[in-house]
Amino acid sequence: MTEADGAQLVTAALLVIGDEVLSGRTKDQNIGHVAARLTEVGIDLKEVRIVPDEEDAIVAAVNALRARYTYVFTTGGIGPTHDDITADSVAKAFGVSIDVDERARAMLLERIPEVELNEARLRMARIPAGASLVANELSKAPGFRIENVIVMAGVPRIMQVMLEAALPELRKGRPMLSKTVLAMALEGDIAEPLAAIARRFPEAVIGSYPFRDENGKSNTNLVVRARDPMVLEAAHGAVVEMVTAHAGRKAGSGA
Amino acid sequence: MTEADGAQLVTAALLVIGDEVLSGRTKDQNIGHVAARLTEVGIDLKEVRIVPDEEDAIVAAVNALRARYTYVFTTGGIGPTHDDITADSVAKAFGVSIDVDERARAMLLERIPEVELNEARLRMARIPAGASLVANELSKAPGFRIENVIVMAGVPRIMQVMLEAALPELRKGRPMLSKTVLAMALEGDIAEPLAAIARRFPEAVIGSYPFRDENGKSNTNLVVRARDPMVLEAAHGAVVEMVTAHAGRKAGSGA
Repeated sequence: MTEADGAQLVTAALLVIGDEVLSGRTKDQNIGHVAARLTEVGIDLKEVRIVPDEEDAIVAAVNALRARYTYVFTTGGIGPTHDDITADSVAKAFGVSIDVDERARAMLLERIPEVELNEARLRMARIPAGASLVANELSKAPGFRIENVIVMAGVPRIMQVMLEAALPELRKGRPMLSKTVLAMALEGDIAEPLAAIARRFPEAVIGSYPFRDENGKSNTNLVVRARDPMVLEAAHGAVVEMVTAHAGRKAGSGA
Repeated sequence: MTEADGAQLVTAALLVIGDEVLSGRTKDQNIGHVAARLTEVGIDLKEVRIVPDEEDAIVAAVNALRARYTYVFTTGGIGPTHDDITADSVAKAFGVSIDVDERARAMLLERIPEVELNEARLRMARIPAGASLVANELSKAPGFRIENVIVMAGVPRIMQVMLEAALPELRKGRPMLSKTVLAMALEGDIAEPLAAIARRFPEAVIGSYPFRDENGKSNTNLVVRARDPMVLEAAHGAVVEMVTAHAGRKAGSGA
C-alpha cells in the first residue's frame, strides 16, 4: 500500500445496542446492510460490536471505538421506552449534557399531534449537547451525530434512511473493489496455489469461502479484493487461470 | 439480584472472525444461533465482536474478551487456506506454541485419504499446545478449546455441531426465561406505564420492540425476562394487565 492510499483510508466500527440480539430473540438485520453500504462508498468497516442495553457497556464501547476508527455508527436504543438509553449513554461517553432538543421536538411534531407528545415520546428528542441531527424521513424521530459518532435507530428501514441521511457528510476513501470466482473445487485442493497468488499480490486481499450448492455438493467461492482496479484485474486473472488449470488436471485424471 | 444468583452467573462473548462479514459479502448466520442456544442452557451472551482476518485484531479481541467473560466462543478462520489464521492467532494470544496435533491429524484421516492430506489440509490439524479438541462429526476437522476459549468453524452447520460438542463440558447458570406480550399499541402510548412496571420488578428485564405487522400496521412486542419463574409470572401478569387496560381505554375513547 502506498502512502497516498494510506492517507485515503477511512475506517468505521458499528455498535449494535440491544438485549434482544444477544438473547437470540431477534436476529440482527442491520449489520449486513451497513457493511455492504459502507464498503460501496469507500468506508472500511473494521469492527462490529453487539452490547446489551446497559449504560456501562455502551459507554465503554463508544469510547473504545471512537478513539480507534474514523467513524462509529450505532444502531438501536433511541425509542421512547425505558430500555432506550443510547442517547443518554452517548452523552455520558462524551461527558456532555443531554436534554430535549427544540429542533428534534419540532421534527417529532411534524408527525405526532402535540396532545400525543407525552413525556415518553419526548425522550426521542433528547439529544446530547453539541450534536447535529440525522434526519429520519420515515418516522421523523431523528438520529444524531456527535463528533465522529453517528447514532441511528434499530428498526432496519429507519436505520437505512438515517444512514443515507448521514453518509453525504462523511469522508470517504477509495472503495475496496471485489470479484468472485467460483472455484469448482474443494478449498483444500486449491489452497496451496491460492496462497502463492496471495503472496504474489500483497496489495490484494484474497478470501476462500467453502459452501454447499443446492445439490449438496461442496464448492468454494474465491473472493479477490483490491482498491486498485489494475491490481484487482491482475489478481483476479491469476485466480481464474489457477482454477482453470485445476479443472483441467481434474478432468485429465478422470476425477 | 441476590448474592446466590450472582454466583451462578455464567457469561460469554462471541468473536466472529471474517473479512467477508465486514465487507457485507456474507451475512453472518451464526450469531443468532449461538445467542439463542447459550440463552437456553443458562450462559448469558454479553457481547459479540466481529473482526477481520488480521492477526493483531484477533489477538487483541481474544485477550480482551477472555479476561472479561466466563467463556469466549470464536467462529471462522480454521479452514485450510492462507486466510485461515484463527488457530495461530489464538496460540499467539495465549503465548503458546502451535503445531500439527496428532489427535487432530487422526481425525482428518477418518475422512480424507492420506494421499489427499496435503500441507494445506494439514493446517486444519494445527492446534495450540495444551488445547483440547472439539469434535466435528460432520467434516471431522476439529475445533478446540484452550482455557476458556472455544474455537469453532465458520460454516454454520459445522459450527452448530461443534457448539453441541463443546456445551456439555461448560458451566451453566440459571437460564434467563422470557415471555412475550403483543401490546396492540404504539410503544409511545404505553411507555410510561411500562416504565413503572420495570421499576416495580427490578429483578426482571423488560424490553419493548416496535414492529410493523404484515398489513403495515405498527405494533409492539413487550418481552419480559427473568431467571426466577415467580418473578417472570408476576412481571408478565403486570404487563398483560397494563396492555389490557390500555386496549380498554382505546376502545372506550372510540380510537
